[in-house]
Amino acid sequence: MEAFRFEIRYKDRDSWARLGKITTAHGEIDTPAFMPIGTQGTVKTFEAGELEELGAEIILGNTYHLYLRPGSEVIESCGGLHRFISWKRPLLTDSGGFQFYSLKVLNKINDEGIEFQSHIDGSRHSFPPERAIKIQHQLGADIIMALDECPPYEAGQSYVAVATERTVRWAKRCLSEHRNLSEGKRSPALFGILQGGVYPELRRSCAEALLSYDFPGHAIGGLAVGEPIEATFEILPVCTECLPGEKPRYLMGVGTPRDIVEAVAAGVDLFDCVLPTRNARNGTVFTRRGKMVIKGASYARDPAPIEEECGCLACRRYSRAYVRHLLSVGEILGLRLTSWHNLYFYLQLMQQIREAISEGRFASWKKSFLESYQEREETEG
Amino acid sequence: MEAFRFEIRYKDRDSWARLGKITTAHGEIDTPAFMPIGTQGTVKTFEAGELEELGAEIILGNTYHLYLRPGSEVIESCGGLHRFISWKRPLLTDSGGFQFYSLKVLNKINDEGIEFQSHIDGSRHSFPPERAIKIQHQLGADIIMALDECPPYEAGQSYVAVATERTVRWAKRCLSEHRNLSEGKRSPALFGILQGGVYPELRRSCAEALLSYDFPGHAIGGLAVGEPIEATFEILPVCTECLPGEKPRYLMGVGTPRDIVEAVAAGVDLFDCVLPTRNARNGTVFTRRGKMVIKGASYARDPAPIEEECGCLACRRYSRAYVRHLLSVGEILGLRLTSWHNLYFYLQLMQQIREAISEGRFASWKKSFLESYQEREETEG
Repeated sequence: MEAFRFEIRYKDRDSWARLGKITTAHGEIDTPAFMPIGTQGTVKTFEAGELEELGAEIILGNTYHLYLRPGSEVIESCGGLHRFISWKRPLLTDSGGFQFYSLKVLNKINDEGIEFQSHIDGSRHSFPPERAIKIQHQLGADIIMALDECPPYEAGQSYVAVATERTVRWAKRCLSEHRNLSEGKRSPALFGILQGGVYPELRRSCAEALLSYDFPGHAIGGLAVGEPIEATFEILPVCTECLPGEKPRYLMGVGTPRDIVEAVAAGVDLFDCVLPTRNARNGTVFTRRGKMVIKGASYARDPAPIEEECGCLACRRYSRAYVRHLLSVGEILGLRLTSWHNLYFYLQLMQQIREAISEGRFASWKKSFLESYQEREETEG
Repeated sequence: MEAFRFEIRYKDRDSWARLGKITTAHGEIDTPAFMPIGTQGTVKTFEAGELEELGAEIILGNTYHLYLRPGSEVIESCGGLHRFISWKRPLLTDSGGFQFYSLKVLNKINDEGIEFQSHIDGSRHSFPPERAIKIQHQLGADIIMALDECPPYEAGQSYVAVATERTVRWAKRCLSEHRNLSEGKRSPALFGILQGGVYPELRRSCAEALLSYDFPGHAIGGLAVGEPIEATFEILPVCTECLPGEKPRYLMGVGTPRDIVEAVAAGVDLFDCVLPTRNARNGTVFTRRGKMVIKGASYARDPAPIEEECGCLACRRYSRAYVRHLLSVGEILGLRLTSWHNLYFYLQLMQQIREAISEGRFASWKKSFLESYQEREETEG
């Protein structure tokens, strides 16, 4: 019994972009959508009511982090992740596969599964695919992910081939465990993950295998893992083309505003990325003309808001001078204001993308956005 | 031209407690009032709109910190502290006198003034009383403080006598500089500061001298500087009695909920204290039955809010288990929720005090509050 549904409402004539709607037991998500990352059960600096106010329709939790702290059993005993973090809208959890690489906690990987050491206390844990699914069922998100192996770009083609085949074998085991756990219950939607690095044949053979399992949606993994950006955008259309058009496509961990706009044009529906919140904490904010290092000394007496035409809380009430001061002296409000602005920027960007697609002017909107955004970033770079 | 006015609306029959209202150019303050501390131009973790929502009618800025960062000239060039931090309600600044001791940055003190080294970069600064006033005029708060010397309790009677006499001489110089700077302008209200430690004769002679300068209000300094709590509450009625009843009395840096209730009974109108926000950051919350260490492991699966009957944002939406998790993993939202709860608690406490005074039942309210509050604190202590 899956509450999950995806419908496409409008297809762009000039690209593979599409406007859609995902329905889950916790509500609807207009796509293309950006999912703010709530790593440890909170989108850093935000209170859940603020995310609602910002219009976030879905947020993401990291299984690896939540499994370690507070523990998936604690969350289950508190009524599941929605209730634990007091978030009533849709939730997605990843499988942990990416963190094992990004945090460099991997001990051993073989067909059995993954063994890793906690980055917190060094304790050892084994994570067969079945466990990744069981933990995600305990957390109880609306969309969950199969366990994948996500090697870095430098692993090279022959290793990526091994990892991709393993990902396919694990996908089957994840699906089987998912079906066992779902019997007679309202169950989450399990997405398969496409691996294959920058190699078209590997992507195509992986997709072919995944399609036979009939997942309700697919994630594109193994990008933004160290490859040159040109390679990302060369392989991305191959990925979207070999995944079925009637199911949502989720590009994991991407990316900059420009990356997102390009990926939408290639047919991607869902995104997540740490950039808006991580940049905020480093004192960098996004504007329609590019990034801006707000903690720079040149803003010390600047009475203007971060971005003149922006309607976010930070820009409606506070000056660059004040934001810069708060960041300089390490005050939490500084992080809150830059995070608010950046997340507002990303969510507005998605809103503009959806409007442009629905009004049949995505190509011209994209051109004008990229011209304006690029200009400033190059000036600053 | 002072916009400052104080009127007493109700006097308690059983104590020296009174209900009052202070009027300033930026609005009114119902007294007895608690002033949240915005050390560096922000009440830690809060956005200004949230403080309005919580009902804070006045907040405090620290001259020492703002002078060093971003600098009083920067704030002046941004239109003053109200505009810089986007706070439209009343503001009070201290003189810096207390920080020189509490941060141990004092180099030299003599009749000329204070010399200190920045706790940030070790730079040397000299602070004659006139400068403390000039900087506060640049910041532009509604209520400002004369520079005082605030020796610790262990300094002993003979040194406290020296410091108290110096405080009186400085008060005169502060007043004179204040009048120069105020000519023809809307000016803040300058409060004199009563020193004299735990010594009744020193308090009385200091008060007598201050009264001759006709300050619009007085602060009681030199308490909560290391003396036993019994000594504080023995000297406090001496202080309030020798300060004129028709002017507001501000007890600096005090205190716990119990201290505040007792001090209101002794005739104090204004309070500031770091306790609600500092305790919040250490994982301790205030409840009507006493303090509670919310980061304790016993709350790991507790679905109840911090305090059952509390109406604050944290208690309306989140569980102890979630707050405890956030604090354990170092997430900002944890600090925000405990700070919100604690400041709400303090502001509600003042609201209850004002209601009890106005309804002629302060004595019985005080008895019942202290019985309930004490019980739990002793159990835990």
